[in-house]
Amino acid sequence: MMNYILSYDITSDRLRDRVAKKLMTLGCFRVQKSVFIGIHFSVKEIGVLKNNLNQLFNSKLKEDSDSFLCLPLTERQKNEMWWLSPDPFPKFEFDNAILL
Amino acid sequence: MMNYILSYDITSDRLRDRVAKKLMTLGCFRVQKSVFIGIHFSVKEIGVLKNNLNQLFNSKLKEDSDSFLCLPLTERQKNEMWWLSPDPFPKFEFDNAILL
Repeated sequence: MMNYILSYDITSDRLRDRVAKKLMTLGCFRVQKSVFIGIHFSVKEIGVLKNNLNQLFNSKLKEDSDSFLCLPLTERQKNEMWWLSPDPFPKFEFDNAILL
Repeated sequence: MMNYILSYDITSDRLRDRVAKKLMTLGCFRVQKSVFIGIHFSVKEIGVLKNNLNQLFNSKLKEDSDSFLCLPLTERQKNEMWWLSPDPFPKFEFDNAILL
């Protein structure tokens, strides 16, 4: 099982909402407006997500500058990350999720 | 030397512009509106960036929900990342930057 960091730039409110809802339905949690962390994904699950997003990105709602980025999130990153905010980083979910 | 992925949620246009300009001055390149990749940072340089951002975040422009996230970016991530967009991922800079 792997964890991922997922981010997007999507112009259409409707498409952006659909992508955000898709990510939340799959148990991803939001760390910033357009940045999510996806936890405990199997190879199959991340492949299904990619296909679903591809379908959404093939819709007429997509604009030319839209993009979606997915990167694996490793233990090393967790240990070396930093976060500036009055709000704490959602640690509980993160700590329990990283089992690489 | 390390590479980083940097993202932010900043409400104030003025503060957001200042942070984006700071990142670009340091040679980071923009992959999405609020997501940058910082390449070839020494430990000292990333520490200086963190201090500078902390100072900006201590200004009156900052709002409570603002945040800045910094994660190291490794060779493994480069190999396993995916990108959905009509625009290609800025490969030249990326390929030349990853020297872990």
